[in-house]
Amino acid sequence: MTDVQHMKWWGWGVEGVGFHWEDKPGFAPFVDYAVGLDLRTAPVISKPDFDKLSVADSLASSAFVASLASIVGEAYVSTDKMERVVHTYGKSIRDLIRVRANLIERAPDVVVYPADEDETQRIVDAAVAADVVIIPFGGGSNIASSLEPRADETRVVLSLDMGRMRKLLSIDDESGLAVIQAGALGPDLEEQLNGKGWTLGHFPDSFTHSSLGGWIATRSSGMQSDKYGDIADIVRGLHVVRPGGILVIRPIPSSSTGPSVREMIVGSEGRLGIITEATVQVHRQPAKRDVYAYFFPNWEAGTAAMQEIAESDATPSITRVSDARETGFSLATSKESHGLSKFLAGTVLPFLMRRKGWNLDDICLSFIGYEGGEAHAKLQKKLVERILKKHGGMGVGSGPGVLYDQKKFDTPYLRDFLLDRGAAGDVSESAMPWSKVNQLHDAVRVAADKAFDEIGIKGWIMSHVSHSYHSGACLYFTFSFVFGDDPIGEYNVVKSAIQQAFIDNGGSLSHHHGVGLEHAPWLEQDISPEGVAVMRGLFASADPGENFNPRKIVADVKEPAKAR
Amino acid sequence: MTDVQHMKWWGWGVEGVGFHWEDKPGFAPFVDYAVGLDLRTAPVISKPDFDKLSVADSLASSAFVASLASIVGEAYVSTDKMERVVHTYGKSIRDLIRVRANLIERAPDVVVYPADEDETQRIVDAAVAADVVIIPFGGGSNIASSLEPRADETRVVLSLDMGRMRKLLSIDDESGLAVIQAGALGPDLEEQLNGKGWTLGHFPDSFTHSSLGGWIATRSSGMQSDKYGDIADIVRGLHVVRPGGILVIRPIPSSSTGPSVREMIVGSEGRLGIITEATVQVHRQPAKRDVYAYFFPNWEAGTAAMQEIAESDATPSITRVSDARETGFSLATSKESHGLSKFLAGTVLPFLMRRKGWNLDDICLSFIGYEGGEAHAKLQKKLVERILKKHGGMGVGSGPGVLYDQKKFDTPYLRDFLLDRGAAGDVSESAMPWSKVNQLHDAVRVAADKAFDEIGIKGWIMSHVSHSYHSGACLYFTFSFVFGDDPIGEYNVVKSAIQQAFIDNGGSLSHHHGVGLEHAPWLEQDISPEGVAVMRGLFASADPGENFNPRKIVADVKEPAKAR
Repeated sequence: MTDVQHMKWWGWGVEGVGFHWEDKPGFAPFVDYAVGLDLRTAPVISKPDFDKLSVADSLASSAFVASLASIVGEAYVSTDKMERVVHTYGKSIRDLIRVRANLIERAPDVVVYPADEDETQRIVDAAVAADVVIIPFGGGSNIASSLEPRADETRVVLSLDMGRMRKLLSIDDESGLAVIQAGALGPDLEEQLNGKGWTLGHFPDSFTHSSLGGWIATRSSGMQSDKYGDIADIVRGLHVVRPGGILVIRPIPSSSTGPSVREMIVGSEGRLGIITEATVQVHRQPAKRDVYAYFFPNWEAGTAAMQEIAESDATPSITRVSDARETGFSLATSKESHGLSKFLAGTVLPFLMRRKGWNLDDICLSFIGYEGGEAHAKLQKKLVERILKKHGGMGVGSGPGVLYDQKKFDTPYLRDFLLDRGAAGDVSESAMPWSKVNQLHDAVRVAADKAFDEIGIKGWIMSHVSHSYHSGACLYFTFSFVFGDDPIGEYNVVKSAIQQAFIDNGGSLSHHHGVGLEHAPWLEQDISPEGVAVMRGLFASADPGENFNPRKIVADVKEPAKAR
Repeated sequence: MTDVQHMKWWGWGVEGVGFHWEDKPGFAPFVDYAVGLDLRTAPVISKPDFDKLSVADSLASSAFVASLASIVGEAYVSTDKMERVVHTYGKSIRDLIRVRANLIERAPDVVVYPADEDETQRIVDAAVAADVVIIPFGGGSNIASSLEPRADETRVVLSLDMGRMRKLLSIDDESGLAVIQAGALGPDLEEQLNGKGWTLGHFPDSFTHSSLGGWIATRSSGMQSDKYGDIADIVRGLHVVRPGGILVIRPIPSSSTGPSVREMIVGSEGRLGIITEATVQVHRQPAKRDVYAYFFPNWEAGTAAMQEIAESDATPSITRVSDARETGFSLATSKESHGLSKFLAGTVLPFLMRRKGWNLDDICLSFIGYEGGEAHAKLQKKLVERILKKHGGMGVGSGPGVLYDQKKFDTPYLRDFLLDRGAAGDVSESAMPWSKVNQLHDAVRVAADKAFDEIGIKGWIMSHVSHSYHSGACLYFTFSFVFGDDPIGEYNVVKSAIQQAFIDNGGSLSHHHGVGLEHAPWLEQDISPEGVAVMRGLFASADPGENFNPRKIVADVKEPAKAR
């Protein structure tokens, strides 16, 4: 076992970190109210017994394993059962359920850890020569089923773990460009950059357990992408190992060279080759970074304010507004010891109710980030608050913002916690034009409720605007329900209903989690059948032998994929 | 003849507009100094005689022409010689030389003007069924040889002129998104948008004669792209007519759907289908729009200031700084009646020389744009000027900026003027990381001078920073020389030397003029042989019959293209 052990084979959990509900008095009543789960009495489901997992024997021949060992050394090739299970899935709820239900449909046959680009090239060449399937593996936090081998794959499957390639290779100080190996996890690269006064500014929820290569391969976004850009904006140069050699995209700020090969690699999920390093835009660590909290009387006021900010000259680093349900959740689940709930319950909320006539069931909590030089951050706050005021927004200070910062990477632990008690907790997000934001928001709620009814359970869905662009926004949904007899089947009903509502109301399949197998059934509705045909042609021509993570994104060569 | 007649078959010139050197007293001496051309004595070369042009007969069968007429009506199909000549080339200097030298290597056989997307689809279907080559034609201002049929093309070639599809179809006011037909020229679409209070903010030099579809197909940028983004940022949704139907990219602000098909269409130069409409980001017309002029003591100070602005919190709309040679050209060629030369000659320059000890041969002229709300524009000016001052920059007011605005679309007319007197005047630009800006700038000068020596002529090259990005900039070069006996051959020597210097010093092939045939020889050096292989596979799979503008971008299927 190597350093992927930081993520458990059965879930996200890390020892000593995680989610502690006991110090959040409002949490248990809220969960009971939302999905009918009584945390005080619900049995905690024990982790599966690893030794009882059914894992088929590795198909890798000893000759092939030996050829890999001759490239990377014996210590960095493994056909060990635990290694293979860890590399079978990502960390979607579908993945976690399957592991816990002993459904290891198709584990990779061999896991290999290259030390550098040269070893990666030799592994790829050996694998393609032997008609082996190659699936690159970064942090393993993928939730779109981008990492799993096809269940019916009869060829040897190799999981190419980039975990040894984590170095910041160089910084071009004049240009604000850094060359970083693709296997670097968020903390790895921020630590190396911070040490030299720089930051990448890319902070997805999965930050602690996801890699630069994974971010690129799935078109990731982070919490401060309003300021720093999505990963597609951040990545300027790329190295991609392919059977013919290394595809090199030089770090150019903007170019008119034909269809953008850079933008083909971004989001390619391993299908065009193995991303080994990237040249990324880095920024000097800002002098000021504040997150302030506000309340709006209702959702429409909050989204109208976000739209006006996007249209204005103001450039905040975070623009987030929760709907009334998510606001209720946040208020209920804040730690007593922190500012938010106590402060609000004691002073702000009664004021809002009494003086402004606001309805507690309608109010929406918003977080706005201001980042940059002192004067810049201060001015942005002033500009933004002028707009917020027009829409009835009321500031409640930066105390809750500090809380937001501390909680920002906690969500996956909350999901583990719920799963241990037999409940789903999952997320799905979509980006759409501003004119569709409220419509899509409401339609997803209706679709999810209908799905909950269909499977006869009590479910919960809530949402927030997570990113703003000139012409639209991203809505980030969180949903939960207690499983019945068929967790995967029930999950499919709910997730499919949400995805279909995204498409039907002008939204993207996903905003920052890729396609994988999870979103592939909607691809034709997303980019049209002709768009899918062009994409399929790209993959077929770039990988005629279907050796590189086949069937991901475009799930089936012959017919459209169906929701699972 | 239809409305493409606004551009002459022999050049760019438009009656009553253009370049008048007589009212610029410094111009003639400058040209004499720079390239040894005495405008007072140089004979003006008469335009070619159209009737004497050798144009092969159209290969289009009357049955095929009739089938097109049945789709668009007889008035909108033509095999007329003038029509075919107008649609043979773009407006590069290579194109103009060829027309004037009676080198119509391969004119299209038939020109057709669809009224709408439905007619475009029917034309495409008929053409592909008949194995006809389709080349889309927008404003005809392309300078990368993207419009010409292959000289050895034995199939019928159809020029698909989008000139009738110029309408603003709709505006989504809430989202700042407009749906516009691809044939709309710059003035068409700005007029329609301005009428409703909006602007696209896209102003390339070719603005008056180039189309939205052309901008998209060649990855165009405009003068205010620092603020509004390059066309790849502006375009959110697309309709592309393909043999199988319409490829539709929905207008989504950001998406994690696989390799970006949107970014494959942008820059595709007709090879993936016919762009019929686009959904583009539009902005409210700004309350304030100023362009201020500054002087720097030298080039290094100017580029260092631009870099610091890009790294800072300031967001000007234009960041331009000319090198010493271009500054000399600007000072020499300003109209006496306008502020710049008189004001400078009388007051500012003597002051700079005397008091600051600046060297007149080193000073660099800069234009910076401030745009947005009144307060925003004012603040940006303050932020920028603080940085300029650190680098020795000195403001000379907005008078020259007004001149810049008025002159901004004049360059092509100047080129026509020089060509009429036997001299080349052309441009080529490249984007690179900030750390390479000065190096590339100097290397291109050396390479061009060496090329001028090689062909034994007196040549001139000058440059400016035209666009700034976080991690780099675009350098825009203008060069000139008097032709000898072999204009195309001499041009090839100079242009090739400049392009090779771009590549050798970390720059892009082009920043906003596409690839076409002109830059294709350097494609492997730009995006690596593996990158070219991926792009070639994309084209081959999307257009197996090679019906869509074949061989452009990737010039030859079997071997790398050679400089012409």
